[in-house]
Amino acid sequence: MGNASPTDGPVHEALAGLALVDHHCHGVATADLAPESFESLITEGDAWPDSGITPFDSPVGVAIRRHCAPVLGLPRHAPAAGYVARRAELGWREVNRRFVSGAGTGAFCLDTGYAPDAVTTPAELAASAGGAAAVYEVVRLESVAEAVAAAGVEPDEYAPTFLAAAREAVERRGAVAVKSVAAYRTGFDLDPRRPSDAEVTEAARRWLAAGSRGGRLHDPVLMRHLLWTAVDLGLPLQLHTGFGDSDIRMHRVDPTHLTDWLHLTSGTIPVMLLHCWPYQRQAAYLATVFAQVYLDVGLTLHYVGPSRARAILEEALEITPFRKLLYSSDAYGVAEFYHLGALAFRRGLASLLQERVDEDELSLPDAVRIATWTACDNARRVYRLPEHD
Amino acid sequence: MGNASPTDGPVHEALAGLALVDHHCHGVATADLAPESFESLITEGDAWPDSGITPFDSPVGVAIRRHCAPVLGLPRHAPAAGYVARRAELGWREVNRRFVSGAGTGAFCLDTGYAPDAVTTPAELAASAGGAAAVYEVVRLESVAEAVAAAGVEPDEYAPTFLAAAREAVERRGAVAVKSVAAYRTGFDLDPRRPSDAEVTEAARRWLAAGSRGGRLHDPVLMRHLLWTAVDLGLPLQLHTGFGDSDIRMHRVDPTHLTDWLHLTSGTIPVMLLHCWPYQRQAAYLATVFAQVYLDVGLTLHYVGPSRARAILEEALEITPFRKLLYSSDAYGVAEFYHLGALAFRRGLASLLQERVDEDELSLPDAVRIATWTACDNARRVYRLPEHD
Amino acid sequence: MGNASPTDGPVHEALAGLALVDHHCHGVATADLAPESFESLITEGDAWPDSGITPFDSPVGVAIRRHCAPVLGLPRHAPAAGYVARRAELGWREVNRRFVSGAGTGAFCLDTGYAPDAVTTPAELAASAGGAAAVYEVVRLESVAEAVAAAGVEPDEYAPTFLAAAREAVERRGAVAVKSVAAYRTGFDLDPRRPSDAEVTEAARRWLAAGSRGGRLHDPVLMRHLLWTAVDLGLPLQLHTGFGDSDIRMHRVDPTHLTDWLHLTSGTIPVMLLHCWPYQRQAAYLATVFAQVYLDVGLTLHYVGPSRARAILEEALEITPFRKLLYSSDAYGVAEFYHLGALAFRRGLASLLQERVDEDELSLPDAVRIATWTACDNARRVYRLPEHD
Repeated sequence: MGNASPTDGPVHEALAGLALVDHHCHGVATADLAPESFESLITEGDAWPDSGITPFDSPVGVAIRRHCAPVLGLPRHAPAAGYVARRAELGWREVNRRFVSGAGTGAFCLDTGYAPDAVTTPAELAASAGGAAAVYEVVRLESVAEAVAAAGVEPDEYAPTFLAAAREAVERRGAVAVKSVAAYRTGFDLDPRRPSDAEVTEAARRWLAAGSRGGRLHDPVLMRHLLWTAVDLGLPLQLHTGFGDSDIRMHRVDPTHLTDWLHLTSGTIPVMLLHCWPYQRQAAYLATVFAQVYLDVGLTLHYVGPSRARAILEEALEITPFRKLLYSSDAYGVAEFYHLGALAFRRGLASLLQERVDEDELSLPDAVRIATWTACDNARRVYRLPEHD
Repeated sequence: MGNASPTDGPVHEALAGLALVDHHCHGVATADLAPESFESLITEGDAWPDSGITPFDSPVGVAIRRHCAPVLGLPRHAPAAGYVARRAELGWREVNRRFVSGAGTGAFCLDTGYAPDAVTTPAELAASAGGAAAVYEVVRLESVAEAVAAAGVEPDEYAPTFLAAAREAVERRGAVAVKSVAAYRTGFDLDPRRPSDAEVTEAARRWLAAGSRGGRLHDPVLMRHLLWTAVDLGLPLQLHTGFGDSDIRMHRVDPTHLTDWLHLTSGTIPVMLLHCWPYQRQAAYLATVFAQVYLDVGLTLHYVGPSRARAILEEALEITPFRKLLYSSDAYGVAEFYHLGALAFRRGLASLLQERVDEDELSLPDAVRIATWTACDNARRVYRLPEHD
Repeated sequence: MGNASPTDGPVHEALAGLALVDHHCHGVATADLAPESFESLITEGDAWPDSGITPFDSPVGVAIRRHCAPVLGLPRHAPAAGYVARRAELGWREVNRRFVSGAGTGAFCLDTGYAPDAVTTPAELAASAGGAAAVYEVVRLESVAEAVAAAGVEPDEYAPTFLAAAREAVERRGAVAVKSVAAYRTGFDLDPRRPSDAEVTEAARRWLAAGSRGGRLHDPVLMRHLLWTAVDLGLPLQLHTGFGDSDIRMHRVDPTHLTDWLHLTSGTIPVMLLHCWPYQRQAAYLATVFAQVYLDVGLTLHYVGPSRARAILEEALEITPFRKLLYSSDAYGVAEFYHLGALAFRRGLASLLQERVDEDELSLPDAVRIATWTACDNARRVYRLPEHD
């Protein structure tokens, strides 16, 4: 077989014993899910109910039936229909508990700013994890900006009000990072310079005049201003990069479009490139040449599944300094993604490292060190988390 | 070996027994080919006769000598010179018959709009296949538009005349799809909106005034109009994407440049992304988030050869719903490409799926279902072909 | 293991016996290096001394400890601290001698135009190699242009003076090629046309007026002019492509941005695309459709290390004519890169070819022929080097 015994060896054992830091994730549903709802949560597309195409018939669907069914007491490769029924039978609390606690995560950095569905609060997620895990919050800046607009603000007060609201959210929630979804709103081919006060006021005037007190933020000047506000806040900035739903214009979210901005903000805040696929090599390049850049391949790992996770990690690690790759699940909506993300990451990374040890390209102590950094230490270092939770 | 026994196992047997639907292909030469002619047909470059470099010294050349020579009764890895001589000895009818019938294709969707060389008609191709195969036509829209211009048309009559001519061609030939080579003419970074009647008339005026009653269509307004005419026609639209000859500006044919157009045309026609390399991941993303998008890696598979076909398919299938990948050879000119495309596809896909079955990442029934969908059922469904031909 | 015995078999033996032509490389340090200096030379980033992150903790660092430590008499996987100390103990002359002579290189094409550190002259490099190797020079055109500006020139004399200076440098040094780092200065999304004399004069006027008699050349008109000057010089042009330090805007150095320029200059000079990662597939496409385009994956191979070199070569060779891929180390600064580049190339290419031979996808004589072309013959042919040095 191409990747030989993918679950054996000392590196596998080391990774199995590590409590992960999942540095970017979301809440999961707090309701029993009807089949259509479950299916709509396991695709970055829509569920296409009339198309005869189900998201179960995709790599992530196959991975759920293979690796999640047994967690619910079903046989491996259980049919999709039985799977969703069994989920309902157990009830969402038990389902969440099994998958979240089974992931072996020691700390979660939770983006609470995206929740079109009813999802777990930080406390509920911690409870699902069995209480042994810490949950830290990440403040999504677009949500803060949109709340500022919705509450009503004068254009020339937008910038200071947004900054103050972001600061307040960070402090109130004890957040360890902020996040931007600029990728979804404008892409990264933005003017890298900090906009002037006058430019921000003028852009805010246009936005706030556009109806419903702002609505969705996608003005390019205000997005640049948002990224520079992140610099002012001083916390690590998580940036959605690459893969996502159809709101993405993929060619505009190649993270190397950020190069000039990274030069201008060098020496300020850590920049965490999330997901990255299919630009994992471009992200790795940035993490190699900019001290402040880090990356993960969250979201990607569960969508490609354990069979393909190693190939993605190989590309993500081709040239990357080992202190620059982090783990995240980017789970949202279904707790299965906590389980699958952790499984795909552990198995993919262990397989890659163990093979290099077996070929004597890497020493075993080095392999274990790299595993530990990637699984948890790099995140603890960047987000200044306690050494253990 | 990296991919272990690449030709064994039940998935291989299942794929070997399936009659493929080759959803995008062309005619093959109806003449005995001189060495230079043969060589010029096995490269996307030119033959470079004065360079001392022969297309035989490339992955596709090696694959022809390995996998096609035995079909002509030559030893594996037969020298290039003997290969072309043997081809002439057998005569083009027999050569075509051996390779086309040997591909095991049940139905062909044939683009008859590109034929700088004398190539098989649909009836001749069906005859080469042994009569057991159905041949359906695909209407190339640029050829229709250029014929309209060549026949003479007033600028303000161009749009309705083109639409009527395309409709007439579709009906006369019983076509199952239309095709555009916008990739070769303008790339995909076009304004996505439907152009107004006035814009089309003005652009047609410029084009028709440019001499020889139009000539090659590459006006960006008329290319947009052509894509929107495809929407009006209501049939699946095949789009050349990625790899091709030196007329391509590769960075402009990343299919994600089509995202806005796909949003605007959502719910109308299926869009079939052809070839895709090196953008197979970008194409897979589009097929994942847009209900109407499908992809193949035709052309690519015979150019990379059976040794590398699995790696390409791995990328094409990383996240892709299994009902979204189709088979095509994109054979043109030499019948060898029918044989090689089918061989590379069957072997690459079977190797990928069989390994996942062996590792218990996929059940065998699921693997066979995925193989069947990809090899034939997905195409029959999109093009509304009969269940069997 | 994924790649099985990576060091056995007749193709390995053949490649081990070939004297490489390293068609693009640089001098190495002529001083004992302090730890910080050594670390700053083994990354395309900076050394980040205050970050707690050392370049040793990256794929290239692991490869140095695994494959270079034994050359210095240390155990495999020796710790970083001991490695740099041992280096100093042996002294730079001995270190250079061991690594450069150990690479098994028969000829070097040396870019002498980049030397922010004190590095070996051509004669010193030849001495390090043991005297059995020939060293040919490559003239970096930006250095010539900047020297012309620094010496003082009237704007309307810039073009002829630059051409004359480049011609003189080529003749004086017996150079076999010229090189451009346009990738670092403007990227490749330039107007492809030859600028007019008036445009060049005007651009030179702006550049020369900008202070310090020009300084760094990055005017887009003058960069276009520089590329066209290379055409006038008639020698092969080496072009930095893809991976490099943070001066690169990666999305602007996709070599397919050169397509129009390659059409305009077709039939003139060979164009050698260097490094290419992560655009090795795009470079391969250009090498397939343009007679004058060649590529290598130098720099990339030692940064990814021997564990990953084969994967990069697989992509670089997917569709590429076998006479179009060359070997280079792109070693600069530390002699280790001569050793690692050669090792990664030999092992990666041999593993790829040997597996295809083992699977009977390629005949052994063909595999050896491809190995020989890539390792040395292709370079000797393009640069018109003698058959043996």
